[in-house]
Amino acid sequence: MRITLIGSGNVATHLGAALKNAGHRIVQVYSRNAHNAALLAYHIGAEAIDDLNSIDPNTDIFIVSVSDDAIAGIAQELSKHNKLIVHTSGATDLYNILAFTDHAGVFYPLQTFSKTKEVDFLTVPLCIEGANESITKTLKEFAQSISNNVYEIDSTQRKTLHLAAVFACNFPNYLYRVAQELLADQQIDFNLLRPLILETAEKVQTNLPANVQTGPAIRNDQKTMFEHLQLLKYEPEWEQLYRLLSQGIIKKD
Amino acid sequence: MRITLIGSGNVATHLGAALKNAGHRIVQVYSRNAHNAALLAYHIGAEAIDDLNSIDPNTDIFIVSVSDDAIAGIAQELSKHNKLIVHTSGATDLYNILAFTDHAGVFYPLQTFSKTKEVDFLTVPLCIEGANESITKTLKEFAQSISNNVYEIDSTQRKTLHLAAVFACNFPNYLYRVAQELLADQQIDFNLLRPLILETAEKVQTNLPANVQTGPAIRNDQKTMFEHLQLLKYEPEWEQLYRLLSQGIIKKD
Repeated sequence: MRITLIGSGNVATHLGAALKNAGHRIVQVYSRNAHNAALLAYHIGAEAIDDLNSIDPNTDIFIVSVSDDAIAGIAQELSKHNKLIVHTSGATDLYNILAFTDHAGVFYPLQTFSKTKEVDFLTVPLCIEGANESITKTLKEFAQSISNNVYEIDSTQRKTLHLAAVFACNFPNYLYRVAQELLADQQIDFNLLRPLILETAEKVQTNLPANVQTGPAIRNDQKTMFEHLQLLKYEPEWEQLYRLLSQGIIKKD
Repeated sequence: MRITLIGSGNVATHLGAALKNAGHRIVQVYSRNAHNAALLAYHIGAEAIDDLNSIDPNTDIFIVSVSDDAIAGIAQELSKHNKLIVHTSGATDLYNILAFTDHAGVFYPLQTFSKTKEVDFLTVPLCIEGANESITKTLKEFAQSISNNVYEIDSTQRKTLHLAAVFACNFPNYLYRVAQELLADQQIDFNLLRPLILETAEKVQTNLPANVQTGPAIRNDQKTMFEHLQLLKYEPEWEQLYRLLSQGIIKKD
């Protein structure tokens, strides 16, 4: 496939590398920021542009990896080329593109990307949605060229999936941070918690989280929970969080 | 060292295997449940007993891995043998043993153990505390025979560490469960979230969580957060949790 990448953030960067490795041809990389466009384009052997008027229409697909708010405006601009346009956003309805063209789809990689850390794209779940069956089929084959985990997910499901990803990724990371700050108060090295954090995530790779819950709340160990709440009494928000999470665990058992 | 294991739960099982592999001699395994004692004793080449009156006093250390409430009673029983007694509990003060003997210590492996999943004990942080410097030295050398991550942690620090472990392990697992249930409502496979969960934990192996926070809250993306809260309005406890965690992330930025 001939591919045009719109955007140069984390998703565009990792996706671009995976597409190039799979033998696709990246025609152009567009970013409002010429430097970012040039940097990514250089790595994946594409032309860098910072003006949508310089778009080469000789492409098969526009992959739009920009901030959610900017997707519709970009889709409107690109629609005149009559090529397939997909966005990569978990939180954005297909309608943001469909409003301007029938050649619309979604190509959402469900992973947290950082520019400094490599990801094995073959393991990344790719959630696709097409405006019609033919587009869905095209996107599915295209997605399978870079990932072993391709799923058809419609816009309604994707909303829930994106919410679930916040619970599975963003919120646990915040809890790691609370733990980090609790330790810092006592001059304890965060290294002590790293193996525990990793093992907790590894456990649910083969089990359902409901089946591997541990800790004082699931044992309804009131004594330990009371002592923990005592330690948190000068951090009322963390205390409330502790109560709410523990009640959830007790109740769900 | 000649070692006596008191208890046959997850911690005793994993610790017993690691000690045996490191060339220590496990003399006896005690459990109130004769079957459990026999099972673990068989695996690690020890004698199984289900009566504390059958304790062989020819040992160097009693490792007490029983429920927190039972530690003091067991320590009292064992104190007559005048041998070193340690417990393996994160939530329990050294005083629970010290009340009965000066030969007291703590040997707390900071990890979540399941009977069905192997753990590389060399990577498990072992937190030790001795009633005096000589015991601390003995425990440190003993701990280093099975783990590369040995830390001296006193009872005050250990309380905070145990609380932090709840935030770093038990609570994230509960959030995985919320995510799992959100997906189940929309007939979406939990497999979609597994790589994300693992990558989130892997990221903080080399970064501090404060530096790798992602998601709508850290971007203060009010539109996405509003839509997520709409999806949660029939689950008021999860809605409250979402608000509290998001506020924490926004505030901490």
